[in-house]
Amino acid sequence: MTHAREMLDTYPGAAALDASTLVECIDACFDCSESCNACADACLGEDDPKSLARCIRLNLDCADVCDTTGKVLSRQTAFEPEMARAVLQACAQACGLCAEECEHHAMEMNLEHCRVCAEACRRCEDACNNALSELAA
Amino acid sequence: MTHAREMLDTYPGAAALDASTLVECIDACFDCSESCNACADACLGEDDPKSLARCIRLNLDCADVCDTTGKVLSRQTAFEPEMARAVLQACAQACGLCAEECEHHAMEMNLEHCRVCAEACRRCEDACNNALSELAA
Amino acid sequence: MTHAREMLDTYPGAAALDASTLVECIDACFDCSESCNACADACLGEDDPKSLARCIRLNLDCADVCDTTGKVLSRQTAFEPEMARAVLQACAQACGLCAEECEHHAMEMNLEHCRVCAEACRRCEDACNNALSELAA
Amino acid sequence: MTHAREMLDTYPGAAALDASTLVECIDACFDCSESCNACADACLGEDDPKSLARCIRLNLDCADVCDTTGKVLSRQTAFEPEMARAVLQACAQACGLCAEECEHHAMEMNLEHCRVCAEACRRCEDACNNALSELAA
Repeated sequence: MTHAREMLDTYPGAAALDASTLVECIDACFDCSESCNACADACLGEDDPKSLARCIRLNLDCADVCDTTGKVLSRQTAFEPEMARAVLQACAQACGLCAEECEHHAMEMNLEHCRVCAEACRRCEDACNNALSELAA
Repeated sequence: MTHAREMLDTYPGAAALDASTLVECIDACFDCSESCNACADACLGEDDPKSLARCIRLNLDCADVCDTTGKVLSRQTAFEPEMARAVLQACAQACGLCAEECEHHAMEMNLEHCRVCAEACRRCEDACNNALSELAA
Repeated sequence: MTHAREMLDTYPGAAALDASTLVECIDACFDCSESCNACADACLGEDDPKSLARCIRLNLDCADVCDTTGKVLSRQTAFEPEMARAVLQACAQACGLCAEECEHHAMEMNLEHCRVCAEACRRCEDACNNALSELAA
Repeated sequence: MTHAREMLDTYPGAAALDASTLVECIDACFDCSESCNACADACLGEDDPKSLARCIRLNLDCADVCDTTGKVLSRQTAFEPEMARAVLQACAQACGLCAEECEHHAMEMNLEHCRVCAEACRRCEDACNNALSELAA
């Protein structure tokens, strides 16, 4: 349980986007950031991290992009659609690249942390795409 | 719902601390970070942000410290108790300072976002203190 | 003086992009992130932060995006052009939006911190565009 | 060259600490953060990253702590000595732990990126300790 919805509902003004879309996206961003940081670390804890170098790298990148996207979306004051669009596009792309890599290791190497992380990445990719659709509407 | 517990459970090795304590602390850190970023923004959206300058500033500091603490605790590989202790102490302190400021505005100015944010800060402060107790044991 | 060039030169492999372009971009990202965080704080320290709410908000967003872009570009292992392109595009956009806002306050309100910050944003915007050109080549 | 000094000099009020001490600490924090992120990546690019797992982990932790410390010190509005002290203590500790690990690999394995990173860590550790001394004065 996070306080994201309550924080949005107590904002002194109108939210920039539909509240449910926004809260789902904020929650998904921070969850994905945590999952990616944990997956990079779990890959490093495996017997052969060298074979997981690309996964670790994409995990770290994706964690950073999600973290930033979650922060930008947490702000409603003077909301700037171009800024939101720019970070959401980068985030959907980052999550897609990281999910693909994690899914590969989940299937080929049976790595459970990659399977869970891919799930968090796909959820975040979807949430970003939903927010982008709403921005375009 | 976050994936923090699943990520920890699929780590290829033993967690550094009791899993429930750790997951509660990781979740509380990211939740507090989001709440503090949102509270800084909500304060800025109020009619007189000047009167909330200290709250905005402590919110931003606390958000950064919680974010870092959540990341450090998400890593189990080569766990270093001194590193964990250092960030947990800073985090408990940051959360306490920010909670106090938010509680003041929640009561004096009836600001609901400060009330919700103070709740997230106190939860994170407690979670950090619990993790610190376990580290000391 | 930063250690970015030395860190890149001691990387055990080839850098993803031309070293000078890369180092200039990394340095510009972290410099812009710091300038934006400081400008948000300086705006908050002015007599009427309400009139600077959009500047503070864009400063915070831009700081977060630059920070992430600097981190992604600091990584050479398993370099992924699509990831680099995604963050560089978001960063050039964020810096452009923030620079425009800061330039406005520098001229209209004679705010020196906005003038310096706009300079850091324009430098970072240019550095991101240079890196994007090289990626496309 | 960073804009940190110019940003501090254009702040509309008095800086919390001696300007030179503060700017040196801010610059050292962001430089150390970049160096640690780059060193984690360079370690991952080596033939046997498994043997460098502790270095990678401490690098990532130290990067996060330095990043947060640089941001907190970039803010002068409603400066809170207890907050500054908490993050500076954590940062000096993180830099010391990471420097020690990097120095070990610089000497034993002749890793140049670890040598450069250790230099950035020691510079930041010193800068944090200087700022702490001034806070205590």
